[in-house]
Amino acid sequence: MKLASLKSSGRDGSLVVVSKDLTRMASAASVAQTLQQAIETWESSASALKKISELVEQNEIETMAYDVDQLASPLPRSYQWADGSAYLSHMRLVRKARGADMPPGAETDPLMYQGGGDYFLAPTDDIPCIDVDWGLDFEGEIAVVTDDVPIGCSTEAAVGHIKLIMLCNDVSLRNVMKPELVKGFGFYQSKPASAFSPVCVTPDELGEYWTGAKVTLPLETVYNGRTFGRVPAGNDLNFDFAQLIAHAAKTRELRAGTIIGSGTVSNTDHERVGSSCLAEKRMIEIIADGRAETRFMEPGDTVRFEMHDPSGQSVFGAIDQKVVAA
Amino acid sequence: MKLASLKSSGRDGSLVVVSKDLTRMASAASVAQTLQQAIETWESSASALKKISELVEQNEIETMAYDVDQLASPLPRSYQWADGSAYLSHMRLVRKARGADMPPGAETDPLMYQGGGDYFLAPTDDIPCIDVDWGLDFEGEIAVVTDDVPIGCSTEAAVGHIKLIMLCNDVSLRNVMKPELVKGFGFYQSKPASAFSPVCVTPDELGEYWTGAKVTLPLETVYNGRTFGRVPAGNDLNFDFAQLIAHAAKTRELRAGTIIGSGTVSNTDHERVGSSCLAEKRMIEIIADGRAETRFMEPGDTVRFEMHDPSGQSVFGAIDQKVVAA
Repeated sequence: MKLASLKSSGRDGSLVVVSKDLTRMASAASVAQTLQQAIETWESSASALKKISELVEQNEIETMAYDVDQLASPLPRSYQWADGSAYLSHMRLVRKARGADMPPGAETDPLMYQGGGDYFLAPTDDIPCIDVDWGLDFEGEIAVVTDDVPIGCSTEAAVGHIKLIMLCNDVSLRNVMKPELVKGFGFYQSKPASAFSPVCVTPDELGEYWTGAKVTLPLETVYNGRTFGRVPAGNDLNFDFAQLIAHAAKTRELRAGTIIGSGTVSNTDHERVGSSCLAEKRMIEIIADGRAETRFMEPGDTVRFEMHDPSGQSVFGAIDQKVVAA
Repeated sequence: MKLASLKSSGRDGSLVVVSKDLTRMASAASVAQTLQQAIETWESSASALKKISELVEQNEIETMAYDVDQLASPLPRSYQWADGSAYLSHMRLVRKARGADMPPGAETDPLMYQGGGDYFLAPTDDIPCIDVDWGLDFEGEIAVVTDDVPIGCSTEAAVGHIKLIMLCNDVSLRNVMKPELVKGFGFYQSKPASAFSPVCVTPDELGEYWTGAKVTLPLETVYNGRTFGRVPAGNDLNFDFAQLIAHAAKTRELRAGTIIGSGTVSNTDHERVGSSCLAEKRMIEIIADGRAETRFMEPGDTVRFEMHDPSGQSVFGAIDQKVVAA
């Protein structure tokens, strides 16, 4: 099933069930007011939400038109947004651009940082640009939402804790990042609010394109109206979501509503499939030509992330954002 | 006034107003069910809570006995827990212990990391020890809770966004930290769930001991029944809470319920005042004797953090925790 959160007067939105073809949606208030409430009671709420989803498909429940501008991120805020860097080809390029070495054990020990979850941008919200010199960039990612995960959860058990899947634009400030990471405490100022796709889906919704705790469809990135990347999300993924969850839960529990991100979707075959962030393209240019042609984002630039199944159906709806001067 | 959260069937506890002498408490359900709700509506809820506080002091409202074991951390979970490292004497010693240099600009640019907020330990909860080789340590800190803070908030304006103050035990895994920080993404596995003092207080409650966005009373740490530190929290603080909030809000908003931590309370005069974590004491021993006498925490060890005003009144109640094998 597909779920979303209507913007509301509250900070957590109002939970709705969305039709599989993304044309209609129905209130889920009879089950849970918010997605956070639903994920905290998933064992009972999932089946009740599934019933609403079936009624939506059968046109046997009152629905309203799907309108992406009325939707917040599925979790408009989250108690935990932990983002991995699971595509090593992205890490190799971006670290080269920053002049940083690959970390020891990168192939066996996932990188993960704690992101800010106190608010997320809506999928069509403008991205505020405070200072163009901060090097505003987008990062197209896959993310999952978990229920309660115990300490020491194995990769095998982690699969069952993945309840929802969505896309993410992990907005990044590249020129703030380098001096910030030198300080050794990780990202803070360099990672302002992220945005997520209008719709999140249960794993079964992806059918054969959800295998072994990863999505195999290509992530499409359109930058200023042109295709920028069409990167198969199942290729060159060094750590799947089960491995990322097991890493995150090694020393503590993860509580329901935790979002785990894949990091920028990236393939080594980037000449053919493109990229999911500007930093990669810039580094590829530097390696090829000695200098970066592509600049970072400025007011007026637009970016769109979407994923279609082979029948042409958009799975998660589109993140579609414009940069505006703040 | 003093506020706390009773453990409840929900994940956010039930808000109570605590008497100034920490003997009684009254339900605040007529104003807000949870502290998170109260801080989101602080402009109206603060005055209503203050009225309950006055009734508690005048013994004109039904109260129950103050019982720390019934209390969760004031915010049992939080959408943002951002922890600074504002006492540079701590940073100098701990970095020396890790073999890490002081970061560039450490005196002018605060360090801050994003912590995990999806659950906090209650103030008297056991600290789980999964592996003694992980180097379990306590860190005594001061923390504040903000309301909504706009992007680019100045240090002057930040003062007004500090709504509540509390103590924190920022549990740390020292031997997990070093290899984790080498990877460059900051703390994740090395920072399991923190605990906060049973009671949080409004700044006025501290009277003259809240000056210029900092607390000046000494933080008392008792380790295994012996005084370990009595460190004046207002001394040798390189960045006060207004500066930490302005740093955090440079590139994005901070939403109501954000917790900002000071980092381990530390004075350069540690021979006289002691320390607020084991890592500092170990480094002092290494500098003096070439080796650390003090080991990290093991099952059975206890740590207690408290702050008294000169009249002997405990301001926040005590964090009082025991390490148990998990």
